[in-house]
Amino acid sequence: MNEELHHADADELQDRLTEVQTLLARHKLVEDLVHRQEMPRNERHDLVEGLVHKQHLNELRHRLDKMHPADIAYILEALPLDERLVVWDLVKAERDGDILLEVSDAVRESLIANMDSHELVAVAESLDTDELADLAPDLPHDVIQGVFQSLSVEEREQLRAAMSYPEDSVGSIMDFDMVTVREDVTLEVVLRYLRLFDELPDHTDQLFVVDREEHLKGVLPLNRLLVSDPDTEVRALMQTDFIDLEPDDFAEEAAKAFERYDLVSAPVVDEEHKLIGRVTINTVVDFIREESEAEQLAQAGLKEEEDIFASVWDSVKNRWAWLAINLVTAFIASRVIGAFEGSIEKLVALAALMPIVAGIGGNSGNQTITMIVRAIAIGQVRHDAIRRLLRKELGVALINGVLWGGLLGIAACWMYGSISLGIVMTSAMTLNLLLAATAGVTIPLLRVRLGADPAVGSSVLITALTDSGGFFIFLGLATLFLL
Amino acid sequence: MNEELHHADADELQDRLTEVQTLLARHKLVEDLVHRQEMPRNERHDLVEGLVHKQHLNELRHRLDKMHPADIAYILEALPLDERLVVWDLVKAERDGDILLEVSDAVRESLIANMDSHELVAVAESLDTDELADLAPDLPHDVIQGVFQSLSVEEREQLRAAMSYPEDSVGSIMDFDMVTVREDVTLEVVLRYLRLFDELPDHTDQLFVVDREEHLKGVLPLNRLLVSDPDTEVRALMQTDFIDLEPDDFAEEAAKAFERYDLVSAPVVDEEHKLIGRVTINTVVDFIREESEAEQLAQAGLKEEEDIFASVWDSVKNRWAWLAINLVTAFIASRVIGAFEGSIEKLVALAALMPIVAGIGGNSGNQTITMIVRAIAIGQVRHDAIRRLLRKELGVALINGVLWGGLLGIAACWMYGSISLGIVMTSAMTLNLLLAATAGVTIPLLRVRLGADPAVGSSVLITALTDSGGFFIFLGLATLFLL
Repeated sequence: MNEELHHADADELQDRLTEVQTLLARHKLVEDLVHRQEMPRNERHDLVEGLVHKQHLNELRHRLDKMHPADIAYILEALPLDERLVVWDLVKAERDGDILLEVSDAVRESLIANMDSHELVAVAESLDTDELADLAPDLPHDVIQGVFQSLSVEEREQLRAAMSYPEDSVGSIMDFDMVTVREDVTLEVVLRYLRLFDELPDHTDQLFVVDREEHLKGVLPLNRLLVSDPDTEVRALMQTDFIDLEPDDFAEEAAKAFERYDLVSAPVVDEEHKLIGRVTINTVVDFIREESEAEQLAQAGLKEEEDIFASVWDSVKNRWAWLAINLVTAFIASRVIGAFEGSIEKLVALAALMPIVAGIGGNSGNQTITMIVRAIAIGQVRHDAIRRLLRKELGVALINGVLWGGLLGIAACWMYGSISLGIVMTSAMTLNLLLAATAGVTIPLLRVRLGADPAVGSSVLITALTDSGGFFIFLGLATLFLL
Repeated sequence: MNEELHHADADELQDRLTEVQTLLARHKLVEDLVHRQEMPRNERHDLVEGLVHKQHLNELRHRLDKMHPADIAYILEALPLDERLVVWDLVKAERDGDILLEVSDAVRESLIANMDSHELVAVAESLDTDELADLAPDLPHDVIQGVFQSLSVEEREQLRAAMSYPEDSVGSIMDFDMVTVREDVTLEVVLRYLRLFDELPDHTDQLFVVDREEHLKGVLPLNRLLVSDPDTEVRALMQTDFIDLEPDDFAEEAAKAFERYDLVSAPVVDEEHKLIGRVTINTVVDFIREESEAEQLAQAGLKEEEDIFASVWDSVKNRWAWLAINLVTAFIASRVIGAFEGSIEKLVALAALMPIVAGIGGNSGNQTITMIVRAIAIGQVRHDAIRRLLRKELGVALINGVLWGGLLGIAACWMYGSISLGIVMTSAMTLNLLLAATAGVTIPLLRVRLGADPAVGSSVLITALTDSGGFFIFLGLATLFLL
C-alpha cells in the first residue's frame, strides 16, 4: 500500500497544484528562452540553462513521487494538455496504472493517446483483473491481446467475466479480492490464518464463510471476530442474514442497499450461490458520484464530462445533440406563433406578453416533473398514486395560476389599458400551469409504463410542451376573445 | 445491532411495501364497513369485525418488527399521511429513534407532529448524542430541555458541541464512538482489550492511538492489526500520516478526502490535536447523497425535498420563490420586447422568430455554465484560466452560431422570402451564443471572486440574460437593418 505517501487535505491539495504549476511555469520559461535564441548560442550559457531546466523537472518529479495517485490524477485534470503531458512523463511508470484508474474518462483518453503499446502493456500488467476491466475499453486492441496472453487461466476468466457485464451492473463494480474461511474452524484458527497474509484486501470489514464448493454460507464481520472468544467456532458467530448481490443486479440497487444498511462490503454470488466476488463501499461511492454527475451533465445536455481544456471541436461534438433537439422544439413553438401572426399584427402587445406565459409554465412544469421523477427513482410512487398526485399538482397549479397569473393580468391591464387583455393573460397562465402539472405527472409515469427511464430528457419534453402549449393557449384565447 | 433483522434487496423491499399496503387496505376496508353501519348493529357481527380488524394490524406489526429501521423509513415515506400514522403507531417504541433518523425531513416532521412530549423524550433518550444533535432541531423545546437533564456531564458537553456546528461542517457529521489505544502496548494487549467490548462501534476499521492527554499520535488499521505479529508494539505499526479533520472543516472537503483516499473512517481533532470524534463513511455517503439531491431540487427551484403527499399549500410554499424570480425575469424580457413593439407591428415575422434566438442562447449558456461551475467545484479552475476558457467557449459559440444560426437563417429566408431577414436571424443567433458563452464563463468566476457559491441560481441568471439579451439583439438588429 501507499503507506509512505502523503494524504493531503483540501488546502494542501490546492497548494500542491499551485506548486506544480509554478514549477511548470519556470520550466516553460527556460524552454522558451532556449528556443528564442536563434543566434548561434554560447555553449556555456546553453549548458547552464539545460541544468536549470533539468533542475525544475527533477524537483517536480520529486514532489510527484510523494503524492497519492488520486492527488496526481487531480493535478493532471487541472492542467492543459501540454503541461499535463510533461507531468505525466515525470510520473514513475509503475504508478501509471493507479493514476489512469483515478482520472476522468476524457483525461484518461488524452494520456493513453500519448503512450506507446509497450508502455500500455506494462501498465495493464500491473493491474488487478477488475481494474483492467475498467481500463480495457480505452486501450487499443493489440494491447488488450498482449496482456491477455500474460494472464493466468483464472485471471483470464475473471477478466472476460468482468468485461462482459454491462456498465451499470453489479458485475462491473465488483472486485475479486476476498478472504474466505470455513465454518467449522475456530476464531483462533482464523486469526492465525489472517497472519499469513502480508496485508488484507482494502475494505475487508468481513470474511466470507464458504463451503468446499465455494457456496456462501455466511459472513463473519471483523468487528465480531475481534470481540469474541477465540475458541468459538465460525459457524456459531457468522451472520446468515446478509445482503448478497448478483452480478446482473443493477449497480444502483446495490448502492441503495449500501446506503440503507451502512455496508462497507457485500458478497457477490452466482445463480448457484457460489461466491464470485465482492463490492466495496469505495466503488459504490465512486458510482454514486458518477451517477449524480452524469445526471447533472445530462440535464444541461452535455453528453459526457468535458475535459475543460478539450478542443473547441470536441466540445462542439459533446454538445450538439442537445442544441439540435432544442432547435426543433423551438422551431415548433415558433410555428405555433406563426399561425397567429394575424392576431399579433392586430394586437402587438401579445408578442410582448406571450413569452411570460410560456416561461412560467415551463418552470412550474419542471418543478413538478423533478419531484415526480425523484419519487419514482426512490420507488415510492405506485401506479395507483397517479390520481392522488395529479389532484395535488393541479391544486398547486390552480393556486399559482390565480395568484401569479392574477398579478400579471393586473400588470398587463395597467400597461395596455385593457381589462379583457388582463383576463386573457390570467386565464392563459392558469391553463398553461394546469397543462404543465398534468404533463409533469403523466409524462414520467407513462414513460415508466413504457419501460423508459423517466429522467432522461424529461426537462426538454415538458419545456417543449409548455412553450408550444403556452403560446397556443395565450394567442388562441386572445384571438377568440379580443379580436 | 440489528442482527436478527432481515436485510432486503430492492425487489424484496418493493414486496414489503406492497404487503404493508395490502394489509392497510384490508384494515381500512373493515374500518369503513364498521363506520358505514349506522343502523343499530348486531353485537356479534361487530365483535367479529373487531377481531378481523385487529388481526390485520397484528400481522402488520409482526412484519414491521422484523424489518430494518431503514426499510420501515422507506415504507413510511411511501405512504400518505393517514396510513403512515397507522404504521407508525405499530412500530415498537424503542425503535422510533432509529427510524426517525432515517426518514426524510418532511416525513420526520409529520411523524413528530403526531407524538406527545412523553414519547419524544423516550425517543431522545434512546439516542447517542451525535444522533440526538441531528434530531434536535425538529424537537419541541421542552423535550430538548427534558432530555438535557437526563444526560451525563460529558454527554451534555458533546451534545452542546455537536449542536453548535453549522450544518455543512465536519462537526455536524461526526460521532463520538471511538476505540482508542496507547502506543506503548503490544498488539496482543490490544487484542485482549478489544475482547472486553460487547461489540465495536460500527465502521471501526482503525483504532486511534492517543497519549494520556488524548493527543492523536497515529491510527492503527484493523487490517494491519490482524496480519501482524502479536508481539509487535502499536508504536511500530501505527500509521502516522493520515487525514485528520477538524470540526470546523467543510463536510464537503471531508467527503472529498474520503473519496480520494477510499477511507472508511477518519479522526476529528481539535486545535490542540486532541481526538474529539470521528467521521465514518456511512455519514459521508448520506451527506453526498443529500448534497446532490439538494442541488437537483434547487435547480428546479424547489426549496427542499417535498413529501410527495404534502398538502397543496405546503407545496405552494416550497415552490413560490422560484416562480416569483422567474416572473420578474420574464417580465423584464417582456419589457425588452415591448420596446420594439413598433418593429414587430411592421414585420410580424419577428414575433415568431424571436423565441428561437432566446431559447437556443439559454440552452447553450446553460451548457457552458454547468461545465464551469463543475470545474470550479472540483477546484480545477484558477483565475488565470479564465482567458483560455473564454477563448474556447467563444470558439464553440461561434461554430454553433454559424452552423445552427445559418440553418435557421435559411429556414427564415425560405419561410418569409427575405434574405436580409435570414441574415439578421443568423447574426442574432451567433451574437446571442457569444453573449451566452461570455456570461457562462464570467458569471461563475465573478461570483467566486465575490465569495458567493457559483452554483446557486446560475441557471436562472444565465437564462434571464440570454432571454432579454436574445430579444434585444434580434429585435435591435431587425430594427436597424430591416425597417
